[in-house]
Amino acid sequence: ILEKAATYEPPTKPTFKIGGRVHLDTWDFPTNTPGIGFFENPSTGNDPDNRWAFRRLRIEMKGDIFETMEWRMQVDFADPSEPAIKDAYLGWNELPGNTTVLLGNQKRPLGLDHLNSSRFNIFMERPLVVEAFNEDARRLGLCVYSYSDDEMYNWRYGIFNLENISQSGAYIGDAFQGSGNARLASSPWYDYSSGGRGWYHWAIAGMVANPDGDALSTAPNSNEARFRTRPEARSSNRWINTDRIADCHWYEILGVESMLNVGAWNFCGEYQVNWLQRDAGRSDLNFHGGYLQVGYFLTGEHMVLDRKSGTLSRVQPYENFFLVPDCYGGCGGGWGAWQVAARISYLDLTDQDIQGGLETNATLGLNWYWTSHSKMQFNAIYGDISEHAPVNGYTGGNFWILGCRFMVDF
Amino acid sequence: ILEKAATYEPPTKPTFKIGGRVHLDTWDFPTNTPGIGFFENPSTGNDPDNRWAFRRLRIEMKGDIFETMEWRMQVDFADPSEPAIKDAYLGWNELPGNTTVLLGNQKRPLGLDHLNSSRFNIFMERPLVVEAFNEDARRLGLCVYSYSDDEMYNWRYGIFNLENISQSGAYIGDAFQGSGNARLASSPWYDYSSGGRGWYHWAIAGMVANPDGDALSTAPNSNEARFRTRPEARSSNRWINTDRIADCHWYEILGVESMLNVGAWNFCGEYQVNWLQRDAGRSDLNFHGGYLQVGYFLTGEHMVLDRKSGTLSRVQPYENFFLVPDCYGGCGGGWGAWQVAARISYLDLTDQDIQGGLETNATLGLNWYWTSHSKMQFNAIYGDISEHAPVNGYTGGNFWILGCRFMVDF
Amino acid sequence: ILEKAATYEPPTKPTFKIGGRVHLDTWDFPTNTPGIGFFENPSTGNDPDNRWAFRRLRIEMKGDIFETMEWRMQVDFADPSEPAIKDAYLGWNELPGNTTVLLGNQKRPLGLDHLNSSRFNIFMERPLVVEAFNEDARRLGLCVYSYSDDEMYNWRYGIFNLENISQSGAYIGDAFQGSGNARLASSPWYDYSSGGRGWYHWAIAGMVANPDGDALSTAPNSNEARFRTRPEARSSNRWINTDRIADCHWYEILGVESMLNVGAWNFCGEYQVNWLQRDAGRSDLNFHGGYLQVGYFLTGEHMVLDRKSGTLSRVQPYENFFLVPDCYGGCGGGWGAWQVAARISYLDLTDQDIQGGLETNATLGLNWYWTSHSKMQFNAIYGDISEHAPVNGYTGGNFWILGCRFMVDF
Repeated sequence: ILEKAATYEPPTKPTFKIGGRVHLDTWDFPTNTPGIGFFENPSTGNDPDNRWAFRRLRIEMKGDIFETMEWRMQVDFADPSEPAIKDAYLGWNELPGNTTVLLGNQKRPLGLDHLNSSRFNIFMERPLVVEAFNEDARRLGLCVYSYSDDEMYNWRYGIFNLENISQSGAYIGDAFQGSGNARLASSPWYDYSSGGRGWYHWAIAGMVANPDGDALSTAPNSNEARFRTRPEARSSNRWINTDRIADCHWYEILGVESMLNVGAWNFCGEYQVNWLQRDAGRSDLNFHGGYLQVGYFLTGEHMVLDRKSGTLSRVQPYENFFLVPDCYGGCGGGWGAWQVAARISYLDLTDQDIQGGLETNATLGLNWYWTSHSKMQFNAIYGDISEHAPVNGYTGGNFWILGCRFMVDF
Repeated sequence: ILEKAATYEPPTKPTFKIGGRVHLDTWDFPTNTPGIGFFENPSTGNDPDNRWAFRRLRIEMKGDIFETMEWRMQVDFADPSEPAIKDAYLGWNELPGNTTVLLGNQKRPLGLDHLNSSRFNIFMERPLVVEAFNEDARRLGLCVYSYSDDEMYNWRYGIFNLENISQSGAYIGDAFQGSGNARLASSPWYDYSSGGRGWYHWAIAGMVANPDGDALSTAPNSNEARFRTRPEARSSNRWINTDRIADCHWYEILGVESMLNVGAWNFCGEYQVNWLQRDAGRSDLNFHGGYLQVGYFLTGEHMVLDRKSGTLSRVQPYENFFLVPDCYGGCGGGWGAWQVAARISYLDLTDQDIQGGLETNATLGLNWYWTSHSKMQFNAIYGDISEHAPVNGYTGGNFWILGCRFMVDF
Repeated sequence: ILEKAATYEPPTKPTFKIGGRVHLDTWDFPTNTPGIGFFENPSTGNDPDNRWAFRRLRIEMKGDIFETMEWRMQVDFADPSEPAIKDAYLGWNELPGNTTVLLGNQKRPLGLDHLNSSRFNIFMERPLVVEAFNEDARRLGLCVYSYSDDEMYNWRYGIFNLENISQSGAYIGDAFQGSGNARLASSPWYDYSSGGRGWYHWAIAGMVANPDGDALSTAPNSNEARFRTRPEARSSNRWINTDRIADCHWYEILGVESMLNVGAWNFCGEYQVNWLQRDAGRSDLNFHGGYLQVGYFLTGEHMVLDRKSGTLSRVQPYENFFLVPDCYGGCGGGWGAWQVAARISYLDLTDQDIQGGLETNATLGLNWYWTSHSKMQFNAIYGDISEHAPVNGYTGGNFWILGCRFMVDF
C-alpha cells in the first residue's frame, strides 16, 4: 500500500538548536485594603512584599531527527532549588495533511494568551481566566497539530493528564484524571501585501475533563478540579481560589478568542466558561471570565501572527535601541520600539457554596522593545476582589500593583 | 627521555559537543499476588500504581582539549526536583597503547548491560543481577581504558569510591569505602566483510570491594554492602533487597559476558557471582544471578558492536519510519525497523540469615526503531519472587508488568 | 538630538556561546587541634572529614543581541540537589565611553581575587578577607563598566541587593538591604613589546552597605551584616564567623589591590578594612584583613592581565602536557606548565563583643597546567585561629589542610 516518495532524501544527521530566555522581574505592591493582606498571608494578614525575582531562566533545546521526527526539551531554573520541566516532548512531523503529532509535556490548547509564548505576549502576566482555567498550561499528553494548505485554518486536539508534572517529572497513580482538548483557529483576513500588518484571527477551544472528585487534598493524586490564579502579577499566593471541589467528576470549558490587527493597533479578547457537574446530591457549578485588551505601537511596528499555529510571533522593531559614539564626537542612537496597551480582565470563581472570589482588573502597559530579542515591560494594575470566602472576616478588597520585567531570549 | 613527536600539530581550540536524551515511560501493573503489594508499599500493601514518568531528561556535553585531554558532563532532569550528575569526568587521551585515563564520575566496569548505553540496550530496564551488583553503575573513580591495535581486545581497570554521589556531588567522610574493578573483553570473531553483521564478544570482569560493615544505616557513610533491584521495571520500591549487611567488610564479584550476533539474530548472556565475608563470627555469604536473551530484527537489521569498548552501539534502520504525501496524492511511508526479543533473568539474594529474595523474570520485548536516534520499546514481564524476608507475612509472590518507552537522543 | 551613526550595520541574528567548567576537588584534613573540631562540628567536636567533591559543574551560556545588548546565564550543578544561579544578567554594551551596563546577578566589584575567574586564580580558594567581606561575590544589581581608550584605566560602579539569591532566584521583602560599590583599576605599566610579560596593576574599591540590623536570624530577610569564611579550603562549616551583628545598620569597606608581574614572577597583595556602625548604644566595630602572595612559573610562562577589566586572564602553556607514541616506537611527550606559589593571609573578625575569630594562614601551592583549559592545583595550608568566641570552651586552634583540584573549562 505504502510506496516511497521518489524524491525523499533523508538528511544524514539530526539537527540541534539550543537557546533560552532570561526574564527578571520587579514587583511593587504600593497599596491595598486589608483583605488583600489576608489573601496573600492568611495567617498574618501582612501586606504583600515587594520583590525582585527571576521569572524565567530557561535552557531550551530542540531538533529534528532526519526530518521525520522532532523533539524539544526545556528546563527552567528561575527558582534553582526547584527546577521545572517545561516543553519536553518527542513527535512525528511531515505527516499527511501538514500534521505533527507530539507526545510528552506540552501546552494544552486552551486560551490564546497561554498558547502565545511568554516572549511575545503584550502584558507581563496572563489574564485571570486564561491562567485559572488552564493553570501552567503544560501537561503530559498526546496532541495532534495540523493546518490547511492555505494557512487559513489550523487545529489541534489531544488528550492530557490533568496533573502538573513540571516539578516531579512523573505521574504515579491508578486514578487517571484526564482531559480531551481541542482548538480550531482561523485567520480569514491576512494582508500579505503589507507584510502582515493587517489580519483577523478567531478561534474556538473546548476541554472536557474528568477529575477524581476526592474531597481531601491529602489523598494521593489530588483532585484536579481546582481553579485559582494570581492577580496578573507575581504575588506569593493565589488570591482567588476555588480550592479542590469535592465530588466534581466532570467539567467542561468552552473558550472563544478573537484578535484584530490594523497596522500599529492590536485588539484582542477572549471569553471562557466552565461548567462543573457534582455528584453526591450537590448542584452543578458555573465559572466564567474574559478579557479585552488593546495595544498600540507609538513607533509604528505591528504585532505578528503565526498563521500555522494561530498565535503571536516575534515583533521586529524598525530600529534597535542603541547609543554609540558617532563620527562627529557626539552620540548616535536608536529608540527601539514603544508600545502602549490597556487590558480589562474579569473572572468569577464564586458560585453557590464555592466562593473562590470574583476579580476585576484594569491594567496599563508600556513595552519598550530594545531589539527583537530583548525588551522591557511595565504594568500598572488596579484590581478589585469580592465574593471571596471569608479570610479572617474579609471577603474582598482592592489593590494597586506595579511591575517591571527585563527580558532577553536567545 | 621524552622527545616531541615531530608531526604533532595541536588544534587551536577545544572541541565542544552538546546533546541529550528524552526517554518517556509508561508502566502498567495489571496483576500481582498480595505479597508484591507489600514489597512495593510495606505499610499499606497496596498494589503498585500505574505511572507515566520521564525516565531520562538529560543534557550532555563533552569535548576534547587540544587532542590531549577530554571531558564529559551530563546532568539528568527526569526528576527535576532532584537533578542527578551522570558522567562527569576529565581525562587524558592519546596515551601510549591506545590508552585513555579518566578521573571523575563514570561507570564501573561490571556488567555488559550497564556498560551499554541506555540508548542502545535491547530491553527497557537492565537485568536483575546487573543492576543489583552494580547499582546505578556510576561512581567517583580513576579508570584506565585501553584497546589493542587490532581491536580484538580491550580492557579497563580502576579504583572507585563505593558511595553514589549522583545526587549530592560530594563524598564526605574519613571511612573510605572503595573498590577495585577490572574488565577484559574480546571480539575474536568480527566479520568486516558484511559490515559487522557477524561477531562474537566475550568478557570477564571482577570487583573487589571494601564496605565499612556498619550495622546501622543511620551511621555516616552508610555501609555500602547492600544489593537490591527493581523488577526490571520502574516500580517505586526495590522488591528484592538485602539491606545493609552488618559486619561485611569485603566482597568480591566475578562476572562473565558472552554475546553472539549472526545477522538479524543476537544472543547474549551474563552470569555474576558475589562472595561476601563477614566479621564478628558471622558466616560468609554468596549471591548470584544471570540472564539469557535473544533478539531478532524482523526487518533484517543487526545489532552493532563497538570493538574498542566491548559494548553495543547504534542500530541503523534500513529505512526510517515516515509518512508523507507522495507525488500521486497518496501517502508514502517507511516502516522503520522492528525487533522482537525475549529474556530470562534470575537473581538470588537470599543466603542464610540474609533474605533479600530470589527473583525469576521472563520478558518479551518489541522494539520499533523509527530512526537511528528514536524508538519505542514494549516490554511484557512476568516475574516470581520467593524466599524474601517476610513483609506482613509474605515471603514471595508473582506479577505481570507492561511497559512502554518513547525515546529520542540527539 | 540623536542622529544615527551612518556606518552602523546591525548583524542579522544574536550570537550564542555555550561552555562550562568541571572542577573536582579532594581535601584532606590530616591534623588539627581540638578547637578546630568544634568550629567544624559544634555539637560533636569531631575533626573535619576528608572529602572528594565537585567544586564546580557549570553550564554557561552567553551572547550578544545585535551588538547592542548582551546577556549571560550560568547554572552550577556541583551539588545537584541545590543548583545555583551564577552570572545571570542582561545588559547594554557599546555605549559611549567604552561602557557596558549590566542588570542582574553579577559580581560585586570588591576584591581582585573574587573578580578573577575561578578558572584563572593561582590558589584553589580565595583569601580569607576577600571571601569574608564579599561572600560568594554575586548579587542582584545594576552595574556600570567602563575603560579608557588607552586601556590604562577601568572602573565599575553599581548598586546591589545584599541578599544572596543564588539558590532561590528571588528576593522577597519590603526591607531592602542594599549597597553601593565601586572600583577603579589601572595598569600604569604594561609591556606590549614582550607580549604582556611585564605589567603593574593597582586598584581601589569601596562599598557602603545598609543591612537591616535585626537581631534575630529568624526574621524575614535576615540581617546581612555577617562576615564569615572557610579556612581557604572546603570545610563543611565556616570556621570564623561574626554571625549576624545586631543593630548594625551601616558598614563601609575600603579595599586596595596591587599586582606586579615580571616575566615568570607574579606578586600580588590586597588589604581591606571594614567599619561598622551600630545603634542602640552599641559601639562601632572594625574588621580588617589582607594577603600577600607570589607565584613563579618554573617553565617560564607568565600570568596574563586583562587590562579592560583589571583582572587575571588565561595562561597559555608553552607546551601542553601529552604523551603519545612517537615515530621511533618510543614515547613523545610534553610537560605542560608548572607554577609554584606561596601566600600569607590574615583576617581579624574579632572586635569588642563580636568575636568572629582571628585567622592567619600560610599556603604553598603548585599548579600543573596541562593545557590552557585544564590544570591541576595542589595547596598545602597551615593555619591558626585565635580570639574566637568559645565553642565548648575552645577559642582557637591550628590545622593543616591538603587540597588538590582537577579542572577543565570549555
